[in-house]
Amino acid sequence: MTEHTYKQFDTELEKIRSGVLRMGGLVETQVANALEGLKTGNIGLLERVIEGDHRINLLEIELDEECNQIIAKRQPAAVDLRLVMTVIKAIADLERIGDEAKKIAKAAKRLHSGEMPFSLRVDLSYGAGLALDMLRSALDSFARADISAWARIEKQDEEVDACFKGTMRQLITFMMEDPRTISNSLEVLFIAKAIERVGDHSKNVAEYVVFLVQGRDVRYAKSVAAEGGTPQS
Amino acid sequence: MTEHTYKQFDTELEKIRSGVLRMGGLVETQVANALEGLKTGNIGLLERVIEGDHRINLLEIELDEECNQIIAKRQPAAVDLRLVMTVIKAIADLERIGDEAKKIAKAAKRLHSGEMPFSLRVDLSYGAGLALDMLRSALDSFARADISAWARIEKQDEEVDACFKGTMRQLITFMMEDPRTISNSLEVLFIAKAIERVGDHSKNVAEYVVFLVQGRDVRYAKSVAAEGGTPQS
Repeated sequence: MTEHTYKQFDTELEKIRSGVLRMGGLVETQVANALEGLKTGNIGLLERVIEGDHRINLLEIELDEECNQIIAKRQPAAVDLRLVMTVIKAIADLERIGDEAKKIAKAAKRLHSGEMPFSLRVDLSYGAGLALDMLRSALDSFARADISAWARIEKQDEEVDACFKGTMRQLITFMMEDPRTISNSLEVLFIAKAIERVGDHSKNVAEYVVFLVQGRDVRYAKSVAAEGGTPQS
Repeated sequence: MTEHTYKQFDTELEKIRSGVLRMGGLVETQVANALEGLKTGNIGLLERVIEGDHRINLLEIELDEECNQIIAKRQPAAVDLRLVMTVIKAIADLERIGDEAKKIAKAAKRLHSGEMPFSLRVDLSYGAGLALDMLRSALDSFARADISAWARIEKQDEEVDACFKGTMRQLITFMMEDPRTISNSLEVLFIAKAIERVGDHSKNVAEYVVFLVQGRDVRYAKSVAAEGGTPQS
């Protein structure tokens, strides 16, 4: 490659790298706005979240295409190839976080559009705060190619799962006490599930960063341990 | 490339191609067995599904690594590159179908391990049959690089979504009639959701095959139409 080509290649890599961060920022805002709309009943905000999802989908398609172009034209190797593969995987998870934001916004809109004024009887803010923190940390790890937050993110994921289970137990109690709340409680249950999924996808992103930095695939570490080997040996 | 290298390259591409089909077959069996165990209460079968999931995870990691190797060593272009990218994406969705099978099996095990004998009061078989048919059709499309089933799979996906909504309505009725059934009904609701997700992921695989065959990215077609353009233009 000539020096000029190298420079172009670097620019292209930087473009997909910053694309992930831009997409991540957008997705984070979508989740935060969906939760804000759920709390305040701001229907306009919820509708903006629902309509905004397609921008994230388009961003995924765009970045995916750029990654394909880089592989075809530049034949990246080693850490450059790992960056491209990490981007391809990370944007798929970010797109799905976008879907979860949309689901939350749609459910919140239904809840706040009913005949009776709706107020949330379970506290989702702790789990939601954790999931958003996981997302930010995962993006930050990617930005700095630094895996020091990974162990904490894995721990937070367990906490988010526990929050979901706690919410489910609370909702079951409410539903048993007053069966008229069943429909609304199910909407809230699916919102809690969506928050849990935001955590799962953020954890995935953090795991891809380990692959990016160290070349190790750390997904399903428990599966691999059960098998008594390493996947790449 | 020498003729020898070409042959090796072909062998490698064939290996990842058949790897997807093998993984797909395994995943299909997992879903079918989980549903069978739900119906019959065969706890041994359900436990085999739960334990079997890690094999699918390992298969994904293995195939993913093989795809990375092919890109690094062979620098594939055009349809060969599209095959590798399709494999990388398809195995991620197949792995998630495996997760859904495991979720169904775990919920079924809890339902059949309660003090009271459990029998399913909603009929999930129609939606489950559709979702499994979508999975088989998507894998078949991939095997034959043939997109003729794609439109039907998209239609079936809508039907599976409608089945889920119908099941949810039925379950709400049961829960309101007899609040003691709420916990079990929620387990069944999450099983119905998992079936719907099997449909979603199968649809994704079918969409990747369109990319493989035609080089068009047809995901989020509605988003793109809303934006008034094509993603790659």
